[in-house]
Amino acid sequence: MRQSQLFSKTQKTSPKDEEAINAKLLMRGGFIRKLSAGVYSLLPLGWRVLSKVNQIIREEMSAIGAEELLMNSLVAKEYWEKSGRWNVDVVYKIGEEQGAQYGLGWTHEEVVSHLAGDFLQSYKDLPKAVYQIQTKFRNEPRAKNGLLRGREFMMKDLYSFHATKEDLDKYYQTVIGAYKKIMKRLSLKAKVVEAAGGAFTKEYTHEFQVLSSAGEDVISHCEKCDFAQNKEIARVKAGDKCPECGANIQEAKGIEVANVFRLGTKYSDAYNLKFKDEKGASQPVIMGSYGIGPTRLVGTLVEIFNDERGILWPEAVAPFKVHLIGIMNQESGIRKKSEKVYANLQKAGIEVLYDERDASAGEKFGDSDLLGIPYRAVISEKAGEKIELKKRSSKELKLVTEKELLKLLTAND
Amino acid sequence: MRQSQLFSKTQKTSPKDEEAINAKLLMRGGFIRKLSAGVYSLLPLGWRVLSKVNQIIREEMSAIGAEELLMNSLVAKEYWEKSGRWNVDVVYKIGEEQGAQYGLGWTHEEVVSHLAGDFLQSYKDLPKAVYQIQTKFRNEPRAKNGLLRGREFMMKDLYSFHATKEDLDKYYQTVIGAYKKIMKRLSLKAKVVEAAGGAFTKEYTHEFQVLSSAGEDVISHCEKCDFAQNKEIARVKAGDKCPECGANIQEAKGIEVANVFRLGTKYSDAYNLKFKDEKGASQPVIMGSYGIGPTRLVGTLVEIFNDERGILWPEAVAPFKVHLIGIMNQESGIRKKSEKVYANLQKAGIEVLYDERDASAGEKFGDSDLLGIPYRAVISEKAGEKIELKKRSSKELKLVTEKELLKLLTAND
Repeated sequence: MRQSQLFSKTQKTSPKDEEAINAKLLMRGGFIRKLSAGVYSLLPLGWRVLSKVNQIIREEMSAIGAEELLMNSLVAKEYWEKSGRWNVDVVYKIGEEQGAQYGLGWTHEEVVSHLAGDFLQSYKDLPKAVYQIQTKFRNEPRAKNGLLRGREFMMKDLYSFHATKEDLDKYYQTVIGAYKKIMKRLSLKAKVVEAAGGAFTKEYTHEFQVLSSAGEDVISHCEKCDFAQNKEIARVKAGDKCPECGANIQEAKGIEVANVFRLGTKYSDAYNLKFKDEKGASQPVIMGSYGIGPTRLVGTLVEIFNDERGILWPEAVAPFKVHLIGIMNQESGIRKKSEKVYANLQKAGIEVLYDERDASAGEKFGDSDLLGIPYRAVISEKAGEKIELKKRSSKELKLVTEKELLKLLTAND
Repeated sequence: MRQSQLFSKTQKTSPKDEEAINAKLLMRGGFIRKLSAGVYSLLPLGWRVLSKVNQIIREEMSAIGAEELLMNSLVAKEYWEKSGRWNVDVVYKIGEEQGAQYGLGWTHEEVVSHLAGDFLQSYKDLPKAVYQIQTKFRNEPRAKNGLLRGREFMMKDLYSFHATKEDLDKYYQTVIGAYKKIMKRLSLKAKVVEAAGGAFTKEYTHEFQVLSSAGEDVISHCEKCDFAQNKEIARVKAGDKCPECGANIQEAKGIEVANVFRLGTKYSDAYNLKFKDEKGASQPVIMGSYGIGPTRLVGTLVEIFNDERGILWPEAVAPFKVHLIGIMNQESGIRKKSEKVYANLQKAGIEVLYDERDASAGEKFGDSDLLGIPYRAVISEKAGEKIELKKRSSKELKLVTEKELLKLLTAND
């Protein structure tokens, strides 16, 4: 699309009330806006990135047989009371004076257990898995860190239902595998970390932690093997020997981007969710719950992929693949050529942001570095007949023909 | 997908606490579930339909140059106070005792006006249009009628920004054109009806009304020409002569599925949203606001397309294109053949629901009629080598070969 038609513009200075790199860069770039503490709007650029993250998640959820649905956010008090979570701190409540008492959905074990009751009667109905990608609400006292901890944020929550503990364990590993694929497609290295279950379960669980100084968790992890524990439960500390392989244990901050919980029968007991086994005996359904935070992932990507000039989006989630920049001048040939290349890139199905504004080369390059689109293609008097191509992640400039540009940008899909 | 793997099951009897046809059929079919008054979860089947409606809307919004974004739902009190809408009845409020006062987003003129202030400074920045597809919350005292009037529902809200009244008028007609295309793609006949602006504007506005006995509005419309007014503002009544063409005026109930508002400067004044015109003079931005209710559209489709046996989805939004039914018996040939046809339909990229359950033909046909998938393809001993094909909307049965079936289902895309 044409840059002049973008709803947002970049800003030269960082917002004063944000400390996190992700918030600063995303706000300066026009990806997001803060409306109040922990509450952000996703502007069109931010929505483009988030939609790509969500699409990757959808594909991997579908690949493990999970069906998408959309549960309600106004969850009546009675549902929370059944599980004993009405008085959990993070629940935003709508009071009785407004006709009915609701807690805003901050997680959906209650609702999904209720829904499943209509459909899971026999062992033949199991296993099942459903997920949603939905805005969640949590009354976070320490809403900070930009998209890493919001009061309103997007979550992908997956729930699974099983006849046996073994089947749950199997699916739990399947989900861990799917989450690893998602992280890989997002170019994120995440550690699978043992952790406590919080308000969800008393069993140990696993978190996907991306090591980053912006993280709120501390991870004790082996410098060599996969051993990693959240500091909250860690039996080892920095300098200790790894109980798995004997190498050194290190400590580092991590951003929790996903988690997996073996719920067991906690919610099926509360919701009387039972099935008849092969012998006709009534058994509680065994459940799992698995979360990923798409908005938090967007923030994490910025924390990991940035430099002093701006963001460096991985190609899989970049808002556009190429930033086409025309360095316009009085001589009309540049604009004409830029328009032609823009039209041909679009025709080839390449996602292109076209900077056709009347602005200086310096301003355009600055914007381009801030926005972090993977490829920059410049048409200018200096480049002459050729197009100057540069990767955002590299300093190397390359002069290519239009044909070579199209080939290069379509080849590496 | 395999019917045994669907999260939901059909139900034989209608829910007791629902009167609306859409609620009864959608709940019996396993498309939705009611959690409390006016609050529904969309089960995977319902989500499939809604996603298709949303995709059609997205395509038509993109075609008129609107960019998608996602605004926040927790809207702090100060934003509503600026426009004087904090005390509008439908606002669900989160109280001060919860750290901050929010009204849940029931419409987003306030937020979008605030966001636009960062980016609209000059006449060169205009016009602009942004939209979102988002869950909205409204404290409806009379939450009834299934998906036609919920306390939590999905809305597509589009906002446009203009330098002149003329430019707004032009875009207003463009949006009406886009909405007509959306209705056509959904197979819905909607009247464009003059109406009052409610809490949005004092100007007259236009509603898209689908005539249906389930509607809550009354429409005075000409039996011949396009003249139509909401009874609330109508200058004519049933039996009068049409002021446009002299034909008879009729009255009928309508479901309001969309609306378009010329907001003028109401919100730009409240938010001090100004731009510099060609002469450098400061002018208020002129705004428009345009809504469509995707969940209400799903309910409307069921109200319009149903018979005594169930739903008849238009192909464009059906959860699947074809319902493949194997009438299994002891003789294993049927299952084998069914599996083969299922595999080939999937390979051809046709959306197929495959009923491979051990159930009677009567039960399977009943489910199929209830679910309303446009084509039913039956494999049975009776049909022999052929496949019995039937449209949901027709009584005609046709015996076709597998090759003919594939050709027929791919041809009419």
